[in-house]
Amino acid sequence: MTALAAMRMGLNVKALSPESAGPVSSLGISHVGDWNDEKVMRRFLDGCDVITVESEWAPVELAEHVSQGVIPVWPSSVTVKAIRHKGRQKSILNAVGIPQAEHLSCQTLDEAIAALDKFGGKAMAKKYEGSYDGYGNVTVTSHDGMQAAWEKLSASDGLLVESFVPFVKEIAVLVARSPSGASVVYPVVDTEQREHRCHAVSVPAQISSRCAEMARNVALSAADAVESVGILGVELFEMADGSILLNELAPRPHNTGHYTIEACHTSQFENHARAILDYPLGDPSLKVPAAAMVNILGHRKGPVRTEGYSKSLDLSRATVHLYGKLESRPQRKMGHVTVTADDVHSARKHAEAAAAFVKL
Amino acid sequence: MTALAAMRMGLNVKALSPESAGPVSSLGISHVGDWNDEKVMRRFLDGCDVITVESEWAPVELAEHVSQGVIPVWPSSVTVKAIRHKGRQKSILNAVGIPQAEHLSCQTLDEAIAALDKFGGKAMAKKYEGSYDGYGNVTVTSHDGMQAAWEKLSASDGLLVESFVPFVKEIAVLVARSPSGASVVYPVVDTEQREHRCHAVSVPAQISSRCAEMARNVALSAADAVESVGILGVELFEMADGSILLNELAPRPHNTGHYTIEACHTSQFENHARAILDYPLGDPSLKVPAAAMVNILGHRKGPVRTEGYSKSLDLSRATVHLYGKLESRPQRKMGHVTVTADDVHSARKHAEAAAAFVKL
Repeated sequence: MTALAAMRMGLNVKALSPESAGPVSSLGISHVGDWNDEKVMRRFLDGCDVITVESEWAPVELAEHVSQGVIPVWPSSVTVKAIRHKGRQKSILNAVGIPQAEHLSCQTLDEAIAALDKFGGKAMAKKYEGSYDGYGNVTVTSHDGMQAAWEKLSASDGLLVESFVPFVKEIAVLVARSPSGASVVYPVVDTEQREHRCHAVSVPAQISSRCAEMARNVALSAADAVESVGILGVELFEMADGSILLNELAPRPHNTGHYTIEACHTSQFENHARAILDYPLGDPSLKVPAAAMVNILGHRKGPVRTEGYSKSLDLSRATVHLYGKLESRPQRKMGHVTVTADDVHSARKHAEAAAAFVKL
Repeated sequence: MTALAAMRMGLNVKALSPESAGPVSSLGISHVGDWNDEKVMRRFLDGCDVITVESEWAPVELAEHVSQGVIPVWPSSVTVKAIRHKGRQKSILNAVGIPQAEHLSCQTLDEAIAALDKFGGKAMAKKYEGSYDGYGNVTVTSHDGMQAAWEKLSASDGLLVESFVPFVKEIAVLVARSPSGASVVYPVVDTEQREHRCHAVSVPAQISSRCAEMARNVALSAADAVESVGILGVELFEMADGSILLNELAPRPHNTGHYTIEACHTSQFENHARAILDYPLGDPSLKVPAAAMVNILGHRKGPVRTEGYSKSLDLSRATVHLYGKLESRPQRKMGHVTVTADDVHSARKHAEAAAAFVKL
């Protein structure tokens, strides 16, 4: 989606991907290769004016090494390293006073068990690196459970143990930030996770304006703290007392921002492209009263055969995005539906209905 | 832009173009070849599920011949032939009672001169085929002028002579129509031509609701009359007495509909893709109060070097599209700006300002 936005701006785009089945394969701009191979990276970067990585696991350090400061790489390794490791992420955000759940970086199983006790016997064990969509997080309520989590998730530098957060709802905010530090903040959205995966997003979030203001300020501070350039996805919790806690950062266009294509004056994808080029950022505000996004997950395992697409279009104001991935598997994100409407409830209802039609 | 919309829908797109410098070249999906060569066409169509032509001068008949009814081609040769020849277009529209300027298909210069006299000494001489953006139309006010026009524009079957129309304003409407005949109509827009080229579009048109209703009905009738499938661009005149005349049809996504990307629930490009696939058509209505589009024309001759793009983005709510054409020349359409706003006047003002910054 970033590539499509950039193409619309008249930019030449090419993509390097370690596998051929990804979403850019249908765009005809895809180079498939081992992106950890310096020679592959060198050949790929030849002729580029700017580089962006759209995964925190992409080899940003190698891209920087090869480009030697001549071609900018955004987000930089500073940002990606600050986010990639959950222990480091929490420390950096703590240092600038951003509210987060209580947590401890535990170097031994004994420390992890002590942390569980300290947090009242209920905690999240979180792998430091490599987790996404809930893979790598476990809820723990016993010493045995912590031992199992430790065996499964701990690395040589240990495990993150976080107090279980009795949040009221999950919300998210996007920040677009330029190399110069200029930034714009998108509206706060309500998010709904199912099995640790983003299921749906609706906007505007049904929260107080005070809470929304806090969330936007926290997101801006976080973007400054990690020196974000491009889009930063910021996931937060709203607590019963109206306070908010930052949950997690993602240094890239984010699933909670897909709705911006139809609903905002400037999409997260266009603002990502503008930011990495150090162009002026676009207006992030809503141009419709409300919108909802529902993900379309894989239905079966194997080569994609799409069913129900046409039916999904029969719903008023549903825009159905499919990512052109060649292989499906259950729960893989294959596309999404956005519906704009006069209120979030009807937007959400129609988006759910449209998404449910599409099977691939 | 149609390709970008289709890609977003998860479709695989490829394009056949007779020259390498066209707007799809940067998408990496372009096949360059002589599209009048049956072998080239046969190789290109292999594996396609549906074919669309985005120029009335593209070899739709050859595509139909090669696909032999197995792969649908939209718009069909029936539609394209009904539109391509201005004399035939006028006759077909006359036959279903669509209001047009008085006109005569003239087979000899004497007939053309008689037509000029009949129309009060002021007329438009119009080449039957191959004209666009004003190339092929001449205003004639004398017998000598008609002789010059005849020499320049007449074909073996003659020349179209049309009464000069003292219109109040030029307006346009898009119709998206499916193979089944289902159709949706976009809002009426005001258009401004400069040197016979579309300069700017603003929406909603500043006309009475009665006039808008007539324009939409005429456009729908025209789409039925030419058996349009996909987008049909319909250009009309508003007359001093509030009546309207149909000026011209274009069987494809149209410059007067570029604004629909940002301003309507479903863009003309998505509805073109939906129509040719016989999917349900999307809501064509505005999702913002007003919008304006201004074309970005080539500034110099030669390979594209873009200046001012970044400045143009500094204007609130300006979305700047560049088409990725590799070669520029003065007056060539290289891109456009769309601005959405609360009223057409500020939309237009900002769109003009943003477009003026970009030089390529």
